Amino acid sequence: MTASNLVELRRDLHRHPEPAWCEFYTTARLVDELETRDLDALYVGPEVLSADDRMAVPDDDVLSEWFERAREAGAREDVLDRLEGGFTGAVAVLKRGEGPTVALRVDIDGLPITESEDADHAPVAGEFRSENEGYMHACGHDAHATIGLGVLDAVAESDFQGTLKVFFQPGEEQVAGGKPMAKSGHLDDVDYLLATHVGLDHPSGEVVAGIEGFLAASHFEAEFTGAPAHAGARPEQGDNAVQAMASAIQNLYGIPRHADGATRVNAGIVEGGTATNIIPEEASLGGEVRGETTELMRYMEEKAHRVLRSAAEMHGCEVDISTEGRAPSAASDDELVSIVSAVAAANADVESVVERDSLGGSEDATYLMQEVQDNGGLAAYVGVGTDHPGGHHTRTFDVDEDSIGLGIDVLSGAILDIASTRP
Amino acid sequence: MTASNLVELRRDLHRHPEPAWCEFYTTARLVDELETRDLDALYVGPEVLSADDRMAVPDDDVLSEWFERAREAGAREDVLDRLEGGFTGAVAVLKRGEGPTVALRVDIDGLPITESEDADHAPVAGEFRSENEGYMHACGHDAHATIGLGVLDAVAESDFQGTLKVFFQPGEEQVAGGKPMAKSGHLDDVDYLLATHVGLDHPSGEVVAGIEGFLAASHFEAEFTGAPAHAGARPEQGDNAVQAMASAIQNLYGIPRHADGATRVNAGIVEGGTATNIIPEEASLGGEVRGETTELMRYMEEKAHRVLRSAAEMHGCEVDISTEGRAPSAASDDELVSIVSAVAAANADVESVVERDSLGGSEDATYLMQEVQDNGGLAAYVGVGTDHPGGHHTRTFDVDEDSIGLGIDVLSGAILDIASTRP
Amino acid sequence: MTASNLVELRRDLHRHPEPAWCEFYTTARLVDELETRDLDALYVGPEVLSADDRMAVPDDDVLSEWFERAREAGAREDVLDRLEGGFTGAVAVLKRGEGPTVALRVDIDGLPITESEDADHAPVAGEFRSENEGYMHACGHDAHATIGLGVLDAVAESDFQGTLKVFFQPGEEQVAGGKPMAKSGHLDDVDYLLATHVGLDHPSGEVVAGIEGFLAASHFEAEFTGAPAHAGARPEQGDNAVQAMASAIQNLYGIPRHADGATRVNAGIVEGGTATNIIPEEASLGGEVRGETTELMRYMEEKAHRVLRSAAEMHGCEVDISTEGRAPSAASDDELVSIVSAVAAANADVESVVERDSLGGSEDATYLMQEVQDNGGLAAYVGVGTDHPGGHHTRTFDVDEDSIGLGIDVLSGAILDIASTRP
Amino acid sequence: MTASNLVELRRDLHRHPEPAWCEFYTTARLVDELETRDLDALYVGPEVLSADDRMAVPDDDVLSEWFERAREAGAREDVLDRLEGGFTGAVAVLKRGEGPTVALRVDIDGLPITESEDADHAPVAGEFRSENEGYMHACGHDAHATIGLGVLDAVAESDFQGTLKVFFQPGEEQVAGGKPMAKSGHLDDVDYLLATHVGLDHPSGEVVAGIEGFLAASHFEAEFTGAPAHAGARPEQGDNAVQAMASAIQNLYGIPRHADGATRVNAGIVEGGTATNIIPEEASLGGEVRGETTELMRYMEEKAHRVLRSAAEMHGCEVDISTEGRAPSAASDDELVSIVSAVAAANADVESVVERDSLGGSEDATYLMQEVQDNGGLAAYVGVGTDHPGGHHTRTFDVDEDSIGLGIDVLSGAILDIASTRP
Repeated sequence: MTASNLVELRRDLHRHPEPAWCEFYTTARLVDELETRDLDALYVGPEVLSADDRMAVPDDDVLSEWFERAREAGAREDVLDRLEGGFTGAVAVLKRGEGPTVALRVDIDGLPITESEDADHAPVAGEFRSENEGYMHACGHDAHATIGLGVLDAVAESDFQGTLKVFFQPGEEQVAGGKPMAKSGHLDDVDYLLATHVGLDHPSGEVVAGIEGFLAASHFEAEFTGAPAHAGARPEQGDNAVQAMASAIQNLYGIPRHADGATRVNAGIVEGGTATNIIPEEASLGGEVRGETTELMRYMEEKAHRVLRSAAEMHGCEVDISTEGRAPSAASDDELVSIVSAVAAANADVESVVERDSLGGSEDATYLMQEVQDNGGLAAYVGVGTDHPGGHHTRTFDVDEDSIGLGIDVLSGAILDIASTRP
Repeated sequence: MTASNLVELRRDLHRHPEPAWCEFYTTARLVDELETRDLDALYVGPEVLSADDRMAVPDDDVLSEWFERAREAGAREDVLDRLEGGFTGAVAVLKRGEGPTVALRVDIDGLPITESEDADHAPVAGEFRSENEGYMHACGHDAHATIGLGVLDAVAESDFQGTLKVFFQPGEEQVAGGKPMAKSGHLDDVDYLLATHVGLDHPSGEVVAGIEGFLAASHFEAEFTGAPAHAGARPEQGDNAVQAMASAIQNLYGIPRHADGATRVNAGIVEGGTATNIIPEEASLGGEVRGETTELMRYMEEKAHRVLRSAAEMHGCEVDISTEGRAPSAASDDELVSIVSAVAAANADVESVVERDSLGGSEDATYLMQEVQDNGGLAAYVGVGTDHPGGHHTRTFDVDEDSIGLGIDVLSGAILDIASTRP
Repeated sequence: MTASNLVELRRDLHRHPEPAWCEFYTTARLVDELETRDLDALYVGPEVLSADDRMAVPDDDVLSEWFERAREAGAREDVLDRLEGGFTGAVAVLKRGEGPTVALRVDIDGLPITESEDADHAPVAGEFRSENEGYMHACGHDAHATIGLGVLDAVAESDFQGTLKVFFQPGEEQVAGGKPMAKSGHLDDVDYLLATHVGLDHPSGEVVAGIEGFLAASHFEAEFTGAPAHAGARPEQGDNAVQAMASAIQNLYGIPRHADGATRVNAGIVEGGTATNIIPEEASLGGEVRGETTELMRYMEEKAHRVLRSAAEMHGCEVDISTEGRAPSAASDDELVSIVSAVAAANADVESVVERDSLGGSEDATYLMQEVQDNGGLAAYVGVGTDHPGGHHTRTFDVDEDSIGLGIDVLSGAILDIASTRP
Repeated sequence: MTASNLVELRRDLHRHPEPAWCEFYTTARLVDELETRDLDALYVGPEVLSADDRMAVPDDDVLSEWFERAREAGAREDVLDRLEGGFTGAVAVLKRGEGPTVALRVDIDGLPITESEDADHAPVAGEFRSENEGYMHACGHDAHATIGLGVLDAVAESDFQGTLKVFFQPGEEQVAGGKPMAKSGHLDDVDYLLATHVGLDHPSGEVVAGIEGFLAASHFEAEFTGAPAHAGARPEQGDNAVQAMASAIQNLYGIPRHADGATRVNAGIVEGGTATNIIPEEASLGGEVRGETTELMRYMEEKAHRVLRSAAEMHGCEVDISTEGRAPSAASDDELVSIVSAVAAANADVESVVERDSLGGSEDATYLMQEVQDNGGLAAYVGVGTDHPGGHHTRTFDVDEDSIGLGIDVLSGAILDIASTRP
């Protein structure tokens, strides 16, 4: 794949951002590309997911809407059919002689953010701004998916000896897709796993050999149910679900910080009530907690549930709390970090190599890393710097497309090095 | 119109509840009926509304959706065309010789409440449950519209001398339709105005000659805007609009009670954020305040705005506050109350007459009452008791259909009495 | 007692405001005066109180401090001895031949408010500002006690036939003294009870024959207990009692208003924590709820307890809630209201008579009124207008001393009238 | 000083815990001891403090109360006289020939915590529980002061060549005493500074050569002022200072966590209102914020002020915010850490040496460390492990008295080593 093909692919994906389990167009587009390669196996949709471990799957009508949208955008019908019900993602397998099984994991989903319309926002200037209004590739997963394909090509064209598996994972933003992919069986024979992310405040030309400091994360959905009443005539007959939710939000942010490390909490999506003159009967709160370790995440989770339950009780409401996605913490193994570091240092286009840096966010790649490590394998999470004008998860985020090629070089280089040095 | 026709009409309206400015089916159905009468004039849509005084008009796409739904439900195309853009409602005029101009005002809109599916909920048993899922006639406006038509027929068939105008008003639940109808010019020559409401905790067979104690009301919409950020990686870069809103809600309910009389506040509809892992950039809050007097409503409004602004400031957000509907307080005139009371007492089917009672809710009929009173006319708000299993604005609300006929008798009787005694 | 004696007494009491159950100086001063009269009985301290019904009694050290202060201010030692342990108040009995037993109830306690030091505040100009810094007669109970004595003298000098009992009640501001006095047995033979209050926004020269609209009230004390921790080193080990209390306060004010009538809530005294760098282990909240009826007060009480308990639970704390004072609602009887109204109207110094008006506050005179009414007697609560520069319970409150004499005239006149017309 | 003398001294100090600027007994007791030594200089009270830099000085009456209490406990009158006005603390100077100037800083204040009365709490069993009820040495400063004296003795008895200064610092818990001592001039000629702390979750026998990770801290006091009103009669006339404070507290804890490092916030002491039936006019909130760096502390400070101001505005109140104490972050210098580490490792009684560990709390020793470092000197903060049954700042905290001797050995050993190796 040429550099211009890679950019074209990235831009096409950028035009079609899709949220968790709705990556219909994205998966179809990738499969379309993958099928032109000489692969040993290509698994799609239900074949790459442990169905019971899927979390945060949207309602059927949401799935249908995105499915339809993908069809209208020109996604291949035969691939779409295989993805029905929100089974997205793919795993491509390349076998070249004897050698270790090395895997690369990239994620492919977008975010519910409205992309900037500023003339100097590159996707506007370059005419590849999101066509799914209200959604956006604001975290670079369009580049990740492209890198995944690029690495596959680079390794295929090399003298690689062993097996390469590229995991195109759905639903990372919801920390919802990592676990079902980790539990799909496709990792069982993997000896080495690399995962990757662009940007993260590292400039173009910089490589981070081992990212650590993943915050373990847990997403939740709380449904408050009270009793409605006429807000003017009978206020005392209502049990106000919105008031319960507001009290919960105020106190969720007040969960004590922890001396053992960083924690996070966010009330990310709220909705409640039906009319200004009715005491709200229902309110829902979608949020998340994080911790520098899995224990810290559990600490936050436990306190958050206590806040949610007490806030409901305070206003005479019921609350139903469900966990919609969860990711543990994880660490990059020294041996892989050294290999990546050496490969990066040897690359003329790499201007600086950072041995280790902390993410400060969450990632469900940790599920895949843990799975491999539990099986006795090694894993590392590699950062590929890219100049990004706006911060991650903001409407002016964009990637420096030159860093896609550099990422492919470093990652494929590391894979070759692993295969040759650790047969 | 026979009693069974009345019931049939009420049930058809019940099946098609529509919110403010979306009463397309309802208006079309009523116009369809009205055109079969021998009227002197029939004004529809834009002809009955002062366009600049409309409040809380939904977005175009919401209007279009309801418009389309009405068409699919079989509403007459030619009438629908006259209502485009959310200009709903009608005024029917009947002229019979010389005499005073008497008006009756009924409201026609439904509520965003999901109707009960219990087998013993009469509309379920009788198979006229709402077909607009999530919406419901939970305050009896289907009966009101039916009474409006019934009174018109009863007066037409009598020896009435004078002019009768029946106002079918949209958007009462949002206190959004009263003012534009009051300012339409159609009230300019009205000498006497009766408004009516069924139920209000009065049983079937009871009539309230003059309802008072309307709470003045003001609906508002507050849009909080902050700054988004990645909730795990960069929480400090966000300005959290949902947190601002939650703080506002907590403190709105904490506005001090007032010694001069009853006040109310409600945060009725809230929405905010886009994803669990993004610091919410936007949040909206639709609410209302009420007061036993217009001054008390203003007191609440002023404090509410202070709370909204301070809560935004507290979390580094902006807030845009708009007033979406407002109704003053009003009083029923003694002379009309006496007439209604006497007519009701003389009716064999009326079991008890309550001279005056307090509503405790709000009503934008007060705009029409004030307009008539300001012009030197008289007004009264008449309660027609009806057994209702669930409370107003709850999903098991229903009316006793027998009370429709009784309401028509009492109201038309009062209109005849007014015309004959006060020529 | 001459007018100047009355003023002198009132100013002496004004100089020595004392809170509930600490009215040592006040009781001693009144007893000192009463003993110079020709009374048939004079009951003091424990003799006028049902010990088990006392509420909100301060700690021993607070009692001792006020006791000592009274001694230093020159209170008679022999009287003080009878009041030990916070048994304050007195009942004076005057018997003159055969006739009904009529009672007058006045209250005698002050408030924890720092009196104004403004030169134009009359007690400053007249040099009788509070000598108990931080406390103040900011509700006119100094005038009430004086009126009690004045009425006793006026009746004693008249041709009154019957028995007069004057109740000097402690602890009204805490609604703490009414019940123990009502249950003391001294009301058992009372046929008619008048209670009185000056001011209440009525000007000098105006009399309100029957005040109604007492809000039933309930005072509570909530003690939150959590777990302390170093706020910097181990924040997660604390269970923050102040955070629990803050959440409770925010939500107490958010208890829904009630359609059946006025309600109130106040978090009046708060205290918590010991150092800025320790997670607060303890916090206390003294508050009150009120309702237009006893039922509404109970409604508020129940919701308030739920809020307090849930807020504690939310932050891992315990809460201990105790009721510190409670007063029911009550009504003035028509027959007494008529008598007072007629007497007032006949008084040349009375400029206007208001038949009935609403208080909008609370009063534990209602306990005494209910007790008499339950025994088949009649009761009324009489307002004596007085120009007051600042509002009740504010630091610039003061009474027009001329209204003391007028109050004595009207109340003694009413007592004479009762005795002569209802022997 | 023998081991039993040291224990006796520590227990005497333990019996007399005193808060910031009230360490009258403690200072007098230490001076009493110090005067028996052969010192070159002994500076006391105002001589060791930059008066303008003192923060969080209590009111005169609080100072007087503690002053009196010290006198009653037997403190020497002549020393007390030198401490008047809350100028506590001392600096002892020992000169032995030519050599570097080395300083040791220990702190001496107690905490407002009520000490456990459990029979198995060592100070209860050993009969040296706090005699200042409500106050306690719950952070080991009694041991610190004792170590200071012990080190002085140990160095005096050695062949030390140079100058030793021991700083007995007041007001550490309020981060109030470090800056005035740092700015007193006594540090100007100091080449090396050691500060020390016992415990911090390190067991007896363990030494931490260099503690880092001090959280920069800032203590604040916020005074909310509203308007009082009768809570029943005129709730709308009040501007509720307690409600403003409660809203502030809820939202202070909601200041976003920061990706750059740990932050803290605490509402440590609150007080407000005067009576349950008065809308509170005043409320005060003493709190603190911390940050892993001085910048993070400033971030928290700025957000906290915004919350405090907005909460006041929200409820129509004014707020006056003052900073009562502030400490920067600081680092231990490698060279000193190495020396301490080596000395500790060579000590047979030391079971384990931790090179560096993070405090996670705050310390105004950082002011002294920065001052020395700014002058070109070196500084280190040394941890002396001690088994402590309860956590720091809890009522069951206690120290293992054996660790006092070990601390003296290691610190004096390090001082000798510094003097001999870096003349």
